[in-house]
Amino acid sequence: MRRRVVIVGAGFGGLEAARRLAGLDVSVTIVDRRNVHVFQPLLYQVATAGLEPGDIAYPIRSVFRRQRNVERVLMAEVTGIDLDSRLVHLDGGDHVAYDVLVVAVGATHSYFGHDDWARFAPGLKTIEDALEIRRRILGAFEQAERRPGDADRLLTFVVVGAGPTGVELAGAIAEVAHHALVGEYDLVDPRQARVVLVEGGDRVLPALPAASSAAARRQLESLGVEVRTGAVVTAVDSGGVTVAGGERIEAATVLWAAGVEASPVGALLGVDCDRVGRVIVEADLSLPGRPEVFVVGDLASVPGVPGVAPAAIQMGRHVARQIRRDLTGAAREPFRYRDKGTLATIGRHRGVAVRGRLRLSGYVAWVAWLAVHIWFLIGFRNRLVVMLEWAWSYLTYRRGARVIVERE
Amino acid sequence: MRRRVVIVGAGFGGLEAARRLAGLDVSVTIVDRRNVHVFQPLLYQVATAGLEPGDIAYPIRSVFRRQRNVERVLMAEVTGIDLDSRLVHLDGGDHVAYDVLVVAVGATHSYFGHDDWARFAPGLKTIEDALEIRRRILGAFEQAERRPGDADRLLTFVVVGAGPTGVELAGAIAEVAHHALVGEYDLVDPRQARVVLVEGGDRVLPALPAASSAAARRQLESLGVEVRTGAVVTAVDSGGVTVAGGERIEAATVLWAAGVEASPVGALLGVDCDRVGRVIVEADLSLPGRPEVFVVGDLASVPGVPGVAPAAIQMGRHVARQIRRDLTGAAREPFRYRDKGTLATIGRHRGVAVRGRLRLSGYVAWVAWLAVHIWFLIGFRNRLVVMLEWAWSYLTYRRGARVIVERE
Repeated sequence: MRRRVVIVGAGFGGLEAARRLAGLDVSVTIVDRRNVHVFQPLLYQVATAGLEPGDIAYPIRSVFRRQRNVERVLMAEVTGIDLDSRLVHLDGGDHVAYDVLVVAVGATHSYFGHDDWARFAPGLKTIEDALEIRRRILGAFEQAERRPGDADRLLTFVVVGAGPTGVELAGAIAEVAHHALVGEYDLVDPRQARVVLVEGGDRVLPALPAASSAAARRQLESLGVEVRTGAVVTAVDSGGVTVAGGERIEAATVLWAAGVEASPVGALLGVDCDRVGRVIVEADLSLPGRPEVFVVGDLASVPGVPGVAPAAIQMGRHVARQIRRDLTGAAREPFRYRDKGTLATIGRHRGVAVRGRLRLSGYVAWVAWLAVHIWFLIGFRNRLVVMLEWAWSYLTYRRGARVIVERE
Repeated sequence: MRRRVVIVGAGFGGLEAARRLAGLDVSVTIVDRRNVHVFQPLLYQVATAGLEPGDIAYPIRSVFRRQRNVERVLMAEVTGIDLDSRLVHLDGGDHVAYDVLVVAVGATHSYFGHDDWARFAPGLKTIEDALEIRRRILGAFEQAERRPGDADRLLTFVVVGAGPTGVELAGAIAEVAHHALVGEYDLVDPRQARVVLVEGGDRVLPALPAASSAAARRQLESLGVEVRTGAVVTAVDSGGVTVAGGERIEAATVLWAAGVEASPVGALLGVDCDRVGRVIVEADLSLPGRPEVFVVGDLASVPGVPGVAPAAIQMGRHVARQIRRDLTGAAREPFRYRDKGTLATIGRHRGVAVRGRLRLSGYVAWVAWLAVHIWFLIGFRNRLVVMLEWAWSYLTYRRGARVIVERE
């Protein structure tokens, strides 16, 4: 019987692993709680009314329509993983058996022990998160028009955390306020909005060289974003945030981009994890003592490897190669991460890019960012629609996805 | 002081009234519970994974960006209308005062006294409804792949009501099952789905001439839709529907397109209504004894006028003209409805169109439908994106908006 490979999670890591198994004599089952793969790097554009969810989502089944060894794609929640019996338990009581398991369930936000902050400061990991953030951002302008006396608080947007997501969110909100909505309100001017980027560390984009951080900061400030580094948030509530030292920022909208921790599904493995819940793995990304179980992407704790899409993709590819080598009896190889560089966009004609010794900022970095993101999107339709949306927004300074979807 | 015109509801009727007031020396305030105008005739395509909400929604403020006498656009729920004091009360406790009021809040589904059916059989009036229906349709195929033994029930889709919405929904679901999803499942074949269109009357599209109804029925059947006329639904529950005579159709997905009633906001007027809650109006569409209050669109009870978009638009235009005439001292005119005909699409190359004595069906009707819907969409961006989506779907037989947005 062919080896049964079960892949849990169809993010960047899981999807790449499955694709790289094409042509191999194994039977692949993919389990994900969604029916689509979501291109997370563009979620912030869904949140800021630039794109619709469908533009950055692609049905998992459609990806594997022509890959014959992908025998099943299941939309299901994983409720348990039994390493001894080699079973993945699903909601509804059924299960799938594996010979090789790839766990690629990713990460979620971390509020550093303050889970009660979540309802005041949503993070950005899912499509539902993005629609919630869009609802809050656009809703704040609508509320301000109704209660202009309260506009200072209503039009203050605090983004906590200045990693790539926080920087991109803050830049996009500033663009919405300073361009997309201008001229549409009567009692408030969207340009009076304050966008405050709060970072506990001493600079934005701390993973980048200091010169790139400085360039990013300058560009954020040129867009009108107030950058507050060295500002550790000590409280978040319905009225705003408090930072260490006691300073208070009154804000109707607080968004969380400060920390991630491993998905709780990882804990179902019942194995050793690091401080943020990521699973400790061997050099080949398998579990200690369980060579048939691999962990890839943000869930894997691999020293020196950041939680970014290119790392997840490389891990997925590596695991597919090890599965292939196992079949031929070749020895496992250790995973080696190749840093493909970092790109962040800050707004029109603004961005930073670092690759090896190459450091770009401004217009060139922005163009590189556009090209790379279009390139890595899945599906001709999504590429075309996203390019069209971007071209339209570029020419008109407007945003095409301003519908507020109500909570139910 | 300039007359204050308050328009409640920015659907087809309210939007048209506001636009037609352009240039007039009045101050216009528009109140809607959403931030966008929704192009309802294409909601069924959002529900069937063809379009995203943003493609058929346009920010109300953007419509009036350049119309100077639209002084305020408020996103608010109306909680009360005080005809004597001429005040519209809003959620949050504030209010707006009017000299002339246009109430254009539209209709909602009617379950004919069986409101408990609503959770088993959602209707299609809002973007949230459309996303819920999309979740149920696509979710049913996902569930069937997990439990193929239960596929018969899971892949039976019952649409109750064969007016234009029911016909278009049933046709689109059949296309999803027979084309868009084919080849993507391993244990079930989407083509085994049953789509049953249940209608209490004796033919589909009962508002059209009998020959057009017959043509629509033939085209539905050629798509694989089972058309059941003369079948009054007597029960809806989680397992399916029961029709008069006791026949039971087991179905995981039941959708409601059978009846509408006036929006409950209309009842806030506290005036005489007809059987389905529509407000009785004078010949000029004003309230009896309240010439300063107009009712337009689906909320107005006007004999011989159907609850369709062209009628709402004509009423909006009529009311704007009466407001203009009032300013010059001219007498009010009665509203005259001009039947612009009816168009319904059933699927690729299929449709019916009736205008006066002209009756089209099949390819020509389908092309007419496409052209009219693109024409009436608001905004260059939306037209372009919708045309692109349709072209892509036409060429590939696929659907670009398959993301299931989770309930919260």
